[in-house]
Amino acid sequence: MSIITLTTDYGLRDHFVGALKGKLLSEFPEAKIVDISHNIDHFNTAEASYVIEAAYSSFPKGSVHLIGVDIELDRNTRHVAMQWNGHFFICADNGTLGFLTQKIKAEKIVSINIHDRLPEDATDLDVFVKVACHLAKGGNLNVIGREIDSVRELNELKPLVANDNSSIKGYVVYVDHFGNVVTNITKKMFSDVVKGRNYEIVFRSAQHTIRSIFAKYSDVVISDTYPPKFYEGQRLALFNSAGNLEIALYRSNPATTGGASSLLGLGYRDAVTINFSQ
Amino acid sequence: MSIITLTTDYGLRDHFVGALKGKLLSEFPEAKIVDISHNIDHFNTAEASYVIEAAYSSFPKGSVHLIGVDIELDRNTRHVAMQWNGHFFICADNGTLGFLTQKIKAEKIVSINIHDRLPEDATDLDVFVKVACHLAKGGNLNVIGREIDSVRELNELKPLVANDNSSIKGYVVYVDHFGNVVTNITKKMFSDVVKGRNYEIVFRSAQHTIRSIFAKYSDVVISDTYPPKFYEGQRLALFNSAGNLEIALYRSNPATTGGASSLLGLGYRDAVTINFSQ
Amino acid sequence: MSIITLTTDYGLRDHFVGALKGKLLSEFPEAKIVDISHNIDHFNTAEASYVIEAAYSSFPKGSVHLIGVDIELDRNTRHVAMQWNGHFFICADNGTLGFLTQKIKAEKIVSINIHDRLPEDATDLDVFVKVACHLAKGGNLNVIGREIDSVRELNELKPLVANDNSSIKGYVVYVDHFGNVVTNITKKMFSDVVKGRNYEIVFRSAQHTIRSIFAKYSDVVISDTYPPKFYEGQRLALFNSAGNLEIALYRSNPATTGGASSLLGLGYRDAVTINFSQ
Repeated sequence: MSIITLTTDYGLRDHFVGALKGKLLSEFPEAKIVDISHNIDHFNTAEASYVIEAAYSSFPKGSVHLIGVDIELDRNTRHVAMQWNGHFFICADNGTLGFLTQKIKAEKIVSINIHDRLPEDATDLDVFVKVACHLAKGGNLNVIGREIDSVRELNELKPLVANDNSSIKGYVVYVDHFGNVVTNITKKMFSDVVKGRNYEIVFRSAQHTIRSIFAKYSDVVISDTYPPKFYEGQRLALFNSAGNLEIALYRSNPATTGGASSLLGLGYRDAVTINFSQ
Repeated sequence: MSIITLTTDYGLRDHFVGALKGKLLSEFPEAKIVDISHNIDHFNTAEASYVIEAAYSSFPKGSVHLIGVDIELDRNTRHVAMQWNGHFFICADNGTLGFLTQKIKAEKIVSINIHDRLPEDATDLDVFVKVACHLAKGGNLNVIGREIDSVRELNELKPLVANDNSSIKGYVVYVDHFGNVVTNITKKMFSDVVKGRNYEIVFRSAQHTIRSIFAKYSDVVISDTYPPKFYEGQRLALFNSAGNLEIALYRSNPATTGGASSLLGLGYRDAVTINFSQ
Repeated sequence: MSIITLTTDYGLRDHFVGALKGKLLSEFPEAKIVDISHNIDHFNTAEASYVIEAAYSSFPKGSVHLIGVDIELDRNTRHVAMQWNGHFFICADNGTLGFLTQKIKAEKIVSINIHDRLPEDATDLDVFVKVACHLAKGGNLNVIGREIDSVRELNELKPLVANDNSSIKGYVVYVDHFGNVVTNITKKMFSDVVKGRNYEIVFRSAQHTIRSIFAKYSDVVISDTYPPKFYEGQRLALFNSAGNLEIALYRSNPATTGGASSLLGLGYRDAVTINFSQ
């Protein structure tokens, strides 16, 4: 099996995504193409970075992840392909791989250099198609690029553990379909620091405080009523399936009553802090 | 062929749907995955119930329908898998299967009990993935659950045929992409009662009345002009492809001029009545 | 490989697209189905026409393109299947194929006549499913229709080259996900006329003028700063991957700052003119 996943900001109204799939299937008819998202906010590499990090591990090793966000080659950027944790990633070197390389070191990174081997009217996306199919067929990275040491870091606010381990300060990196707010504080950071202490999660100038982190949303339900309407809209924190600290409202609907983001006033790049007791 | 269909309220912006597909393909690489909808209104089991009922019969017998709407297991609910009319359905026991079981009896229903056979960090969705792949591979229901007699009924207003057969009163259960309004009055109910009589369809305090039910939208067109602009926006009733009574506007565009829902003031749970003449 | 592509105005919330795929797979389990778009504006055949023209060439020859926009058969229209440039297209004869047949002549067109061979409750879409699977399996057009000479022309404003080659006047036919504005002036028209002369692109009563046409968006970037924020929102013209003249803003985001369409006040059917110097 040769899975190629797609993460783009192309939207689902235009012909772009369909055309991309047509090109992939023309080049490699056996490719199994899976959409991750085509609704990344326009040119938002931080959002792409979170989404691909949250999704990749659900796919088998050897999968190829094509990330079509802000990929036009100009004189100040380049195209890269990276082997990392058994997966392959193709994108422009614009920070998109930042969340991954912060976690563990890449096995190999190349700066793609096949551009002049393609027809003159080939687009940047055509280059990605060529590389994705080459890798999905089991091809080698060195055939399509020149090895490099590192990729650009994400131009984002980094989470910070205080020197005395008294707090972790992180930032909102994503707001999901349910209006829930995802931070860049990871379960690992938290586990390394908590050591059985009590803590409180603080945001928006301490107006809001949460004193426990659940394993799943429904842990907020502690009585036997059904349906669990009583708990709807209740504030909670949990580590989501990507391992990130998330501030959520139980069973919220952003289209009607609002979600955590709108109701708690927490948006992209806002700070969230965990303060540990002494 | 082993088709697994997906119906969720996960939306198409986040990584959730892609990750779900990655998990299914990791477990069962030959699975043929088909999206039915990922834009079910958040936690709206009634909407999920209508959509899956309207879609299932287009798929071959043996297909597995995974419904990811409001599936978190809490102390008051459970996960179920149902064999019904030759198809398999996997969901939380929250009413989602109500429209189906109202129609005909299930062949078999089990309460899924494999949760403690999975890794400790497995999510509720991981359970569904496991069950879906098991069934798509031809596995037996009894291997993954304990047989039960029935599922929860949909917590919805039921359509009612008057004792003297003088009327059928139903309710709006769905508003579609064209703004057309779908009720829970079925073609079968109507056929059982009409017996050649005249009738009128009444809604919004009889302000609006329709006196015939068409077989298809374009039956409203009775002249030879082209394009059929003259008929645009005309009110009509028909039994849709799911067999439900639908109130529609011919060639309506909810994004510009408005659809039946907005222009006739008919929304979710509003009443629609068919009165038969004596 | 037997690719069937789908272009519809069904949206992604209802069950329609999933049901369509279920029917195709029931009829032809080996079909490889690829979505082009399901968000064509309701009943907008001009939009469908542009999208399918822009997408088709990315697919291998022999692909079958099913276009489900405004397909209900009434007494004034018909269903057609067309072999064109090695591809197959199925749609209602409502102008959808206009952009294609303007370019080159069809190899064969048939008026589909299998309607009375299907079950009585078959829908118009069922007819398309039958035809699409027949063609994807390598079947002959003459088996499913009666040969005809031509299809309806698109009911659209046509681009016009002045008699003295002093100008080309075209019209906006599409606004894309980035807010960029696509006209029906093609690269070929331009190349035939330009003959090394200078030119200016004029729209909105000459309030806006552009004096060059780029090969790609990032050609607007001429300095070495990174990220290229400095150029964001800059106005430019290019021939897009479909070969149409496009008016764009560099890295625009219609959801926040606005795109070319909103900021330049250029919408569907507005005129864009290229004036050549003498």
